[in-house]
Amino acid sequence: MTQLRITTRLDYHFPQPSDCLLQVEVAHGPGQRIVSESLSTTPVDDFRRVPAESGLGTRAWFGAEGSWQATYEAEVEVTRPGVDLAALPATPSRLLPGDATSYLMPSRYCQSDVFLPFMASEFADHRGGALAEAIRAWVHESMSYVSGTSDATTTAADSFMARQGVCRDYAHVVIAMARAGGIPARMASVYAPDVDPPDLHAVAELWLDGLWRLVDATGMADPSEMAVIGVGRDAAEISFMTVMGAAELRSQEVEVVRA
Amino acid sequence: MTQLRITTRLDYHFPQPSDCLLQVEVAHGPGQRIVSESLSTTPVDDFRRVPAESGLGTRAWFGAEGSWQATYEAEVEVTRPGVDLAALPATPSRLLPGDATSYLMPSRYCQSDVFLPFMASEFADHRGGALAEAIRAWVHESMSYVSGTSDATTTAADSFMARQGVCRDYAHVVIAMARAGGIPARMASVYAPDVDPPDLHAVAELWLDGLWRLVDATGMADPSEMAVIGVGRDAAEISFMTVMGAAELRSQEVEVVRA
Amino acid sequence: MTQLRITTRLDYHFPQPSDCLLQVEVAHGPGQRIVSESLSTTPVDDFRRVPAESGLGTRAWFGAEGSWQATYEAEVEVTRPGVDLAALPATPSRLLPGDATSYLMPSRYCQSDVFLPFMASEFADHRGGALAEAIRAWVHESMSYVSGTSDATTTAADSFMARQGVCRDYAHVVIAMARAGGIPARMASVYAPDVDPPDLHAVAELWLDGLWRLVDATGMADPSEMAVIGVGRDAAEISFMTVMGAAELRSQEVEVVRA
Amino acid sequence: MTQLRITTRLDYHFPQPSDCLLQVEVAHGPGQRIVSESLSTTPVDDFRRVPAESGLGTRAWFGAEGSWQATYEAEVEVTRPGVDLAALPATPSRLLPGDATSYLMPSRYCQSDVFLPFMASEFADHRGGALAEAIRAWVHESMSYVSGTSDATTTAADSFMARQGVCRDYAHVVIAMARAGGIPARMASVYAPDVDPPDLHAVAELWLDGLWRLVDATGMADPSEMAVIGVGRDAAEISFMTVMGAAELRSQEVEVVRA
Repeated sequence: MTQLRITTRLDYHFPQPSDCLLQVEVAHGPGQRIVSESLSTTPVDDFRRVPAESGLGTRAWFGAEGSWQATYEAEVEVTRPGVDLAALPATPSRLLPGDATSYLMPSRYCQSDVFLPFMASEFADHRGGALAEAIRAWVHESMSYVSGTSDATTTAADSFMARQGVCRDYAHVVIAMARAGGIPARMASVYAPDVDPPDLHAVAELWLDGLWRLVDATGMADPSEMAVIGVGRDAAEISFMTVMGAAELRSQEVEVVRA
Repeated sequence: MTQLRITTRLDYHFPQPSDCLLQVEVAHGPGQRIVSESLSTTPVDDFRRVPAESGLGTRAWFGAEGSWQATYEAEVEVTRPGVDLAALPATPSRLLPGDATSYLMPSRYCQSDVFLPFMASEFADHRGGALAEAIRAWVHESMSYVSGTSDATTTAADSFMARQGVCRDYAHVVIAMARAGGIPARMASVYAPDVDPPDLHAVAELWLDGLWRLVDATGMADPSEMAVIGVGRDAAEISFMTVMGAAELRSQEVEVVRA
Repeated sequence: MTQLRITTRLDYHFPQPSDCLLQVEVAHGPGQRIVSESLSTTPVDDFRRVPAESGLGTRAWFGAEGSWQATYEAEVEVTRPGVDLAALPATPSRLLPGDATSYLMPSRYCQSDVFLPFMASEFADHRGGALAEAIRAWVHESMSYVSGTSDATTTAADSFMARQGVCRDYAHVVIAMARAGGIPARMASVYAPDVDPPDLHAVAELWLDGLWRLVDATGMADPSEMAVIGVGRDAAEISFMTVMGAAELRSQEVEVVRA
Repeated sequence: MTQLRITTRLDYHFPQPSDCLLQVEVAHGPGQRIVSESLSTTPVDDFRRVPAESGLGTRAWFGAEGSWQATYEAEVEVTRPGVDLAALPATPSRLLPGDATSYLMPSRYCQSDVFLPFMASEFADHRGGALAEAIRAWVHESMSYVSGTSDATTTAADSFMARQGVCRDYAHVVIAMARAGGIPARMASVYAPDVDPPDLHAVAELWLDGLWRLVDATGMADPSEMAVIGVGRDAAEISFMTVMGAAELRSQEVEVVRA
């Protein structure tokens, strides 16, 4: 069991009235328990929480203008057990539940259809957890963690060619490969200690042996120390802030420490 | 009220044992009532229905090998009222429910983020239903319906440049533009009479004034005569058949007549 | 020495008056001697030959309308010696002549910049002819020759992901990799016997040890039996026919036999 | 007649021995006369000038390691007359010379094939100079000059969607549209006063009425005040520095003043 103390501070400026979608609060979900939490923001219009993707966690809509700050603080107990990924058995696709089935399909940044030939040629002999572990190892070894080489348009295929990127890009390649290999895969935004520089972190989550399993090919964080905020098909669906209109991000600070 | 009689016949050959995901059955949902229906197929392994995207309709998983045929027959009453799209008021994004919020994000074929500058320059003055109608009209007038010019890799941005395509491509451009304009948008696979050549049809569905509204920019079909099978972010999520492995489609026949 | 007898027959229909650029005539160039040749076409306007890329061979401009046929017949002696690619020494980039330098840059279908990371990770230890041979072998072994899986928009990066294609796609991947590895590379359209189905053939040409060397990663044809028509950066520059306007290709027949 | 005084200073660090291709010297060519010039650099290996694209200007190869600086100074008389672009007559494609023909084809960043439908729908009634002027005006009005929004992978199609970019991107869109409209088009790197911030500038060059015509859709510079360094199909072929290996650009200063 790990206890995490999380502090997130955001400072934005919205030149015009803008509707915003914020997703920074830890989700109530398997393997993690929220001991305490609080979110405080500059007064806004119509602050409303709506369920996030797959019903895990929430997003908050609100309207804001001008200077806007928010502070989120939480204490979370992570009880997610360690798992030997490689030992998990494969599930035939036809036995997948509906929610896992959704995460087999290609998405904005994870065009898994494009990875089918590579998977067939490199990993034809692997299935289930052994395949998941082979993918994680391939991405970990083939890619280099380099900031500033990818942006909001970079896809898994781009990152596969570039062989470099940040956590978002590592996760995209893992997800695209997993789906192409028949394993449902999604992306999770998480808080974790030791992320360097300290920031929100993004990892893959693969459906294996009946449960979703967090996989971090960067090697920066361990699932037993991750507090999940939300999940989605890829980076397009787990953004911590989406602004309908112009916005200036003045500062964003994330601190995650073991309690 | 329109009564539709639908017959779909599929004939496949699977050289190896393959897991398949079939989505051809009409959904129980708003604006349509299934009077009678039957699905019969060559015997398969583990035939299991799972909920489809947004809980609308079902997909069916099964395992098959060798020659496989299916026949789906249904009689459906469509009671969906006609709607004056242009008259529908706009909803501020911050008041969107969670399910609609999901359909604001870019997806595999509808990279709405890429359309933001075009929408800002062409449709800055339009909102809500007036924007939806302007998008429908723009796509209807700017694109030509030409078979064989797009394939499974063609995105909304490709179709926007090519200015041609089939129903799938029309719907993708409408969806990408709508999302870029702040309107939640998804894709629906439907049965409709008068589709030429007769086939499964794909249209856009936009969330306006609290409800999802079917929009067919090809002009081939009318929402008051569509029986919806399922919905998804784009063509990646409403495929009538997804095969995990090799497959040969020998024939596919769709007949939709007014009863 | 191989003697080739070449016959090409084209049959087009131009619904409107169109300007056309034809490139089917064998080039006067190193390693091949034109013994006899003739080109006859339906009467056209302003038939004019202009030098083709790198001054090798010619393209012919003309204006045509309605039905148009052409027959090209040639007898060519190919005296191009066989070469042990792997044995050719590397040339430092800084000693490259101007024409070879041009063929180091990325082009429409051969975005060599995208291949730099792959080349650095897979072939860092190879240089010169050994690198060229390693690239040829990799492409030959990794790709499958499958018609109908690529089209006029397919790039080297697409083919690298898809691991399949036709001669055009094989050549594109070889060229993109060679340039990324520091070897000037271009595409040649050639006539060769045993191409199946009989057609114009496209191969890579790499600048090694002071000369251009034809490389066919499909294994279909041997440089000692190729009659080169023209060269260019990629398929965009060696098209056998470019029509400024609408055109219908009714038939295209190519016959190449050893005399 | 304008007299320009040009000073370019480059400061690089090459961590390993690297072969470099430098193109900063003004070309001897139509409309400009080099009154005086000098290039001085840190001592290098094998400094060799080779002809640049289309035989206009030169590129210089050399080998370097560690710290490297260069200073280029030139005084150039520009005698290029002003031209009323819109008044230039159209040339039928079939009468184009070979060199102009080469610049009709799609290239790395200017995939003109993708622009054919847009050109047909927006500019079907324009030809020759009137078309060139319509393209220039469309790009000037539709795009916004914003630094930092494009990078080395951004194509003309990307910029067309994004409707923003820098001089490179403006030129790419003009070139892609011109080729799609049947006008040969290439890119020129130039020195010009008033470029803000001061830097090397990139513009389009269109072949109209028998000559190449410089076109700057950014409106920053006038052809009568441009000193051309070199030309190429697009940014891939006019780079001022190409390094075969790792390089760190420490500083780059360009000053262009009217004498």
